[in-house]
Parts: sequence; C-alpha cells; structure tokens
Amino acid sequence: MRTDFSNWTRAVQNKICEITEELEEDKVFTEDNWERAEGGGGITRIIQEGKIFEKAGVNTSEVYGEITAGIRAQLNIVGERFFACGISLVMHPSNPMVPTVHANFRYFEVYNEHDVIIDSWFGGGVDLTPYYLFEEDAIHFHESLAQSCNRFGENWYKKFKQQCDDYFVNHHRNGERRGIGGIFYDHLRPSVEMTPTHLFEFSKSNAEAFIQAYFPIVARRHDLGFSQAQKLWQLHRRGRYVEFNLLHDRGTTFGLKSNGRTESILMSLPLEARFEYDYQSVPNSEEEKLQKILMAPIAWVK
Amino acid sequence: MRTDFSNWTRAVQNKICEITEELEEDKVFTEDNWERAEGGGGITRIIQEGKIFEKAGVNTSEVYGEITAGIRAQLNIVGERFFACGISLVMHPSNPMVPTVHANFRYFEVYNEHDVIIDSWFGGGVDLTPYYLFEEDAIHFHESLAQSCNRFGENWYKKFKQQCDDYFVNHHRNGERRGIGGIFYDHLRPSVEMTPTHLFEFSKSNAEAFIQAYFPIVARRHDLGFSQAQKLWQLHRRGRYVEFNLLHDRGTTFGLKSNGRTESILMSLPLEARFEYDYQSVPNSEEEKLQKILMAPIAWVK
Repeated sequence: MRTDFSNWTRAVQNKICEITEELEEDKVFTEDNWERAEGGGGITRIIQEGKIFEKAGVNTSEVYGEITAGIRAQLNIVGERFFACGISLVMHPSNPMVPTVHANFRYFEVYNEHDVIIDSWFGGGVDLTPYYLFEEDAIHFHESLAQSCNRFGENWYKKFKQQCDDYFVNHHRNGERRGIGGIFYDHLRPSVEMTPTHLFEFSKSNAEAFIQAYFPIVARRHDLGFSQAQKLWQLHRRGRYVEFNLLHDRGTTFGLKSNGRTESILMSLPLEARFEYDYQSVPNSEEEKLQKILMAPIAWVK
Repeated sequence: MRTDFSNWTRAVQNKICEITEELEEDKVFTEDNWERAEGGGGITRIIQEGKIFEKAGVNTSEVYGEITAGIRAQLNIVGERFFACGISLVMHPSNPMVPTVHANFRYFEVYNEHDVIIDSWFGGGVDLTPYYLFEEDAIHFHESLAQSCNRFGENWYKKFKQQCDDYFVNHHRNGERRGIGGIFYDHLRPSVEMTPTHLFEFSKSNAEAFIQAYFPIVARRHDLGFSQAQKLWQLHRRGRYVEFNLLHDRGTTFGLKSNGRTESILMSLPLEARFEYDYQSVPNSEEEKLQKILMAPIAWVK
C-alpha cells in the first residue's frame, strides 16, 4: 500500500497540474524536489501570479523515520517508526468570484521496534472557501463529494461533512468557519469489512470528485468582473484563511514540528492578505450573507 | 501599585497617541472601550490608512479574575486569582523606509484563596522591525534603550537585549528574527533591593526611551521615496511578522486563550502582508543585507 498510495499521489499531482496549466494557458508550475534529513522528501509545484491563480500549490510528499517526541506529542501515537505520504493542494484564484480550494489525501503507517506494521490509516479532505456565494456552485461542489462518499460507506458524506464543519473553525472568531466546507476524515483504519483497497479506492474517488467539483466552477467564474471593494473583501477573508492555518491547522503545526519543509507547508498561505481592524461588512450585502453562512453552516445536499 | 500602574498606562497611551496624531496631521485615533465578561476590560485606539501609519494600535487593558485552567497552563502559575494591566502598541508605517515598532509594559499580581497577594512582577519590551536598515537609526534606537536600562540595573541592557533576540525568533525559518530587536524582560519581581517603586520607575523610563527612540526615526524617514519593489519587500517582511505573531508570540496566544478581545489582540497584524513562495532576495542587495542581520543579531551598542 505504501508504494501504491505514493505512486498514486504523484499521478494525481500530474493530472491536477495539467488541468490547471490548461486553464492558465501561459504559465506552468515550477517544481522543487526536496529531501528530509530524517528520511523521505517531496515534490512541491507552485504557480504564482498566473492569469487565473494568484497562488496555487500542488504538493506530494513521502516522509518516514523515527517517531520523535515532537511527532508523538502531536499525533498521540504509540510506536517506533512511521511512514506518511500524501498529496496536498491549495489554490487561491485572483478573481474574488472564484473560490479558494483545499484538498488533501494521505496515508499513514506505524511500526514497532521490529519494523512490524502495528497501525495504519487513511485521511483526507476537500473544502471550498468562496468569497462570493453562488449557490449552484456550493451545491454542485457538495453533491460531487456526497456522491463519492456515499458509494463507499453509509452516511459517510453526512459524517465527513460534519467533521469538516467542525474542523475548519476560527475559534478566536466566535466559531466562524474558514469556508463553506466539504468533507474531512482521518484515522480511517482498514478492517475486515473495510479493506485497504476499499479505502484506497475511496481516496481515488474523492480526488476525482474534487476535480469534477472544482474546475468547472473555475471555468464558469474566472471571467466575471469585480470591483475594487470586492477585491478588498477577498483580501480580508484571506486574512482569516491565514489566521486559521497558522493558529489552528494541525497539518501546518505537524509539518513545522516534524521538520517538514517550511516553504512547502506555508504554500497554503495566500499571496496577499489584509488584516483590517474590526472589519464590518455592510448590512444585507453579499458579504454579510456569506459571513452568516460561515457562522452557521448549511446542508447543501438534501 | 495596581492603581498606579493602571493609571500610568492610560497616561502614556494618551501621550503616545498625541505624538502620533501630531505626525499624522489629518487623522486621529478611533477608540473602542471594551469589557471582559470575566472581569476588567480595555481601551483600544487604532489609526488605519493614515498619511504615515498604514496601521497603528495603542491599547491599554486591565483584566482580572479567576486563574482558569487555560491561563494556568499558559503562564505556569500557582494561585487562585490574578490581576494584569498593561499598555501594548504596534505601529506599521506605510513607507518601507520607516520601521515598524512594538512596545509593551505590563504588571501582574497573583492572589491566593484569601485574596492575599502571593506574587507580582513587571514585564516589558520595545523592539524595532526595519525593512531597510539605516545604521544610525538602529544605533540611536538601541542606545536610547541602553541608557534607560543601565540606570536601573547592572548589565540590564545587555541582558534584556539578549532576551529580546532570543524571543522574537521565527523558529520555523531557521531562527530568523522578526526584526533588529531592542529589549525584552519578564517576571521582574520586587525584592528588598529592587522595590516596586524602582521597577515602576524602570517601566516609565523605558516608555520614555521608546518615545525618544522611535518618533525621531519616523520624522527623519517618512518623506523618503521608495520603489514598488521596495514596497513588495516590506509586504514580504510583514508576512514574516504575521507568521511570528500567530505561530510563536506568547502574548497573542495568552490573549486569545484568556478570552481577551480578539480585535484588540490582532491589531498587531499589519494591514497588508504577502506570502510569496520561496522568496529570494537579490545577492548583495539592501534586502539581503538586512536578512543576514536578522539571522545573526548585531551588538548595536559598544
């Protein structure tokens, strides 16, 4: 499974980068290959200041080695060595009418002192952060994920949608969500009913659902006009994205504490953000409408 | 001391705001008075998009109440109730030739179950974050602080300068400092030789040294011209300021965990910041020169 999952992350990385480059037309990803001193490494691909994407990162990594005290405290796991691989992407479009997206699929193994595997699990997530809400886009996005999830487990969409709403929370902002959610799951452990192959297929299906869910939205919205005030609102919301990632995101803190590559981890931050004191949106505006949804997530799939 | 220190913070707040408004000419601070449900409150004063300051906050607060589990874990203190008051300010100028400054002076008391004071201490700090280095400014700034510190304790400047260099570190950036430092001290406890009055006078002297150290720099530099590339470098450095404050600053995390007012705490963030992937400064440029100093702090006072 290690090799299969790892190979698959690189195949998906290629596919997503190809689709993105087709949309961008003139710009291609730059690639950085990096190695981790303690074992493993990754491939970081970035587009910056493109026609459509202000900043987009599509990264794969495969890291392994000793479970250090830092990693142990962070993950609360028992064992001597670990293996982790995954694909992680964040895309921040320039146009405030196009939502930011984040997706991540990962696989984890834990070994005892005899290098025998004693635990393993799959994790992943896909979530959308719009600046202006197009209801049909939100429904399309969530329905794609729901169809994928419910083919693999009973009520999985409902469950993982809830986990997503519970995870991407700016606790210091009265519980405001980072975006309108999607799915988030972790520690999906193989069992007799739920084979590794089944869970691997689930990851593949979700990655495909992400592609079907997101890029049509980009294609539909990237040519829409917008005002300077709408751009400022986007930059304000991107400030909240930064706050979540640096204050609350476990992936970011795990990466920084396990001596991951800082530039690859912080590729998730938008190119530009604003932190205006006590920002207030205009009553009954589109901005306020979105803000209310961020405070009280909606069931997009009936 | 509670009342004296608290009254003094508000007097200094007034003085600093007056000096700032004189420089700004057309713009005055807006003021928000806020209360903390568990006890106390504060006065937050902000200028945004002024002629000189893109964003400047000068806050006082006085908070008290139960030592909750969150506060206990954060501060590692024994006791039932606490009192804390202080002034905290961050000023981000628009012009990249003018440095950002941060200063903070605070006083803390701890009580047992009979409301008897069992511990108290003074803390504070003043530090400078330039985007372009003018050596005479750096020397002037550090000398003002050195003169203040060394009137109150032997080697205090040297000691507190070191503590400042050790505190404002972006550990995830190979130990890069947020700026060129200043002084930082905490847990200065009154004793027979070091009376509360002495330590209070030390706080006052440092606040005066801050005023003498910073505003002449602003007056000297705010009219200098700059290029778009220099503005982008400033925004990149402000990204690092955001990273430090959200990932590493104890004041920020203490504030957010003790149910402080989020808007007042996060006033420290710059109005605008950039997070460019793998930013590289030009070899032998002014930007690279500063970056090297941030990696290896300089002894500005001989």
